[in-house]
Amino acid sequence: MRSTSAWRADATTTLRRADVERRDLREDDIAVRVDFCGVCHSDLQAVHAQTDGSGTPVVPGHEFTGVVTDIGAGVSAFAVGDSVAVGNIVDSCGDCVMCVAGQENFCREFPTLTYGGTDRRDGSTTAGGYAREYVVRDRFAYQLPAGLDPAGAAPLLCAGITVWEPLRSLGASPGTRVAVVGLGGLGHLAVKLAVALGAETTVISRTTDKADDAHRLGAHDVVISTDAQQMADSRDRFDVVIDTISAAHDLEPYLRVVALDGTLSQVGYLGPVSVETTDLLFGRKRLSSAGSGGRPATADMLDFCARHGITADVEVVPSAHVNEVLDRLERNDVRYRFVLDLSDLDE
Amino acid sequence: MRSTSAWRADATTTLRRADVERRDLREDDIAVRVDFCGVCHSDLQAVHAQTDGSGTPVVPGHEFTGVVTDIGAGVSAFAVGDSVAVGNIVDSCGDCVMCVAGQENFCREFPTLTYGGTDRRDGSTTAGGYAREYVVRDRFAYQLPAGLDPAGAAPLLCAGITVWEPLRSLGASPGTRVAVVGLGGLGHLAVKLAVALGAETTVISRTTDKADDAHRLGAHDVVISTDAQQMADSRDRFDVVIDTISAAHDLEPYLRVVALDGTLSQVGYLGPVSVETTDLLFGRKRLSSAGSGGRPATADMLDFCARHGITADVEVVPSAHVNEVLDRLERNDVRYRFVLDLSDLDE
Repeated sequence: MRSTSAWRADATTTLRRADVERRDLREDDIAVRVDFCGVCHSDLQAVHAQTDGSGTPVVPGHEFTGVVTDIGAGVSAFAVGDSVAVGNIVDSCGDCVMCVAGQENFCREFPTLTYGGTDRRDGSTTAGGYAREYVVRDRFAYQLPAGLDPAGAAPLLCAGITVWEPLRSLGASPGTRVAVVGLGGLGHLAVKLAVALGAETTVISRTTDKADDAHRLGAHDVVISTDAQQMADSRDRFDVVIDTISAAHDLEPYLRVVALDGTLSQVGYLGPVSVETTDLLFGRKRLSSAGSGGRPATADMLDFCARHGITADVEVVPSAHVNEVLDRLERNDVRYRFVLDLSDLDE
Repeated sequence: MRSTSAWRADATTTLRRADVERRDLREDDIAVRVDFCGVCHSDLQAVHAQTDGSGTPVVPGHEFTGVVTDIGAGVSAFAVGDSVAVGNIVDSCGDCVMCVAGQENFCREFPTLTYGGTDRRDGSTTAGGYAREYVVRDRFAYQLPAGLDPAGAAPLLCAGITVWEPLRSLGASPGTRVAVVGLGGLGHLAVKLAVALGAETTVISRTTDKADDAHRLGAHDVVISTDAQQMADSRDRFDVVIDTISAAHDLEPYLRVVALDGTLSQVGYLGPVSVETTDLLFGRKRLSSAGSGGRPATADMLDFCARHGITADVEVVPSAHVNEVLDRLERNDVRYRFVLDLSDLDE
């Protein structure tokens, strides 16, 4: 076994530095020195799940970049020294209809999550990227294209791909009218990607606070969701609505702004939702959802981002500040993604 | 005012023969001698709404065929003697984004319904096609193509167009895998239309009772929804699922059989529905709905049906039996659509 330093929550919501094990490299494994790890909203939820004292200790982190430090005997796609990126899934069955379609994120045997998942070969619980090293099956690491800042690129591997897949599958392109609801970690990347895809892009936000930012990110218009007139004027307006709100919320106002045969894709909230069938019927509107990404789409997105110079707007923080960072994230006090710099774990 | 004989429910669920008024022809009106009127599930609901004694008396019927007997001074698209068909909407604002898109059924001012609606010009309540005559604005009548049996064609105007629009907008065609859930009035037409569109078509039914019928209608396969193994084997299988079940029901089993980026279109039930976001997420599946149709799509459907010899499988009944017919419909004792023959109202 290998060992590395990590930030771990163990029956408490406070993360503490701990030594965690990494497996010895299998034939198709690579070892990655984790340099930068994004802080995702689901990390916060995983840490909060510790409060009842019954959970397995968790090392969060599932969007990170770093450098290959070692490779298994059968690895040919990576060499020591390569810059790489890893997202929120690290294995899948490989045989089901979704894996065969390159949608390992929807694996019918359930994909192995980067942390809190169960390794398919040894049954161990995976520990995430709030650590100085990660060992990952080569198929689930991606070459980080030259020119992409490794800190800003880290959030592409979860926040980025989560909005990229619905934008692509729903055909966002020149002539498409896209709205992004909520301008946070997911939302700001959705805006950058939609704009780069050529779509006419609008931000729907509760307040005017982020209007300047929305335009700076490339948005062509901003609609204030608390302004009834603005929302009424936007009825039936958007072919694609990417809804990044992370809490349960009424979908009706956002279905109203979907155009004929358009789609509302909910990517921020994963619980049960209720809709009135008639809100879908009057316009043949579609409700969908998306999350994470398959291997081909993830590689495509990284290439696209490199070509268009897209990374997340990040606040890079030494990993020792991780608890303060989670507190701030809970208050939505971030524009637009925290990224932990793990180099301080060498000290 | 004109007068005609009709079947009307008045503070009771029993329809009784009554004389009802029809307006004098406006410049753009035609008068239609109603020969055949389909019996739709929503007719039953409208009649049931009479039980509390508070409703407006209702003459149901919104899918009918007949012959033009008179035309207004400005009518050029129809002549006396033309065979025509009328569906469940008879007017719309004409100016909103949906009307301009030819989707008058989604008119943002709400379309005028064929019965129980409010006429846009004189404010009167519309009375439906369980009557010997109907007066309708010319734009909302359709030439009945030669060769289509008028009795079998009547249900095309509501049941048919309601499944035609989602099949078309979701791209049902050779190579598309379509499932039709429920084999009733809507379902049997969905099968015929999907097969004629070239889609690989499967019926999903609760029991094996209708398996032979499904194949006779052209379905390539039948899946029994109460057979867990069959449903499991159909997971992620269908690009388009047309769900015609008319009561509230759990959507999860039917979302499971939707393929990656496929759509479940609910056309039989119009109330609120709950879904787990994860049932949509794991496959980027889409939930939608549809109902009725716009003028261009309705005309297209009638042409398509004429070319492919498609009409509903109907049981034609003298209109005097309307109460028995509604009782049998409530028990689902019909294969697959009742059609009232209104000629007995001449007696």
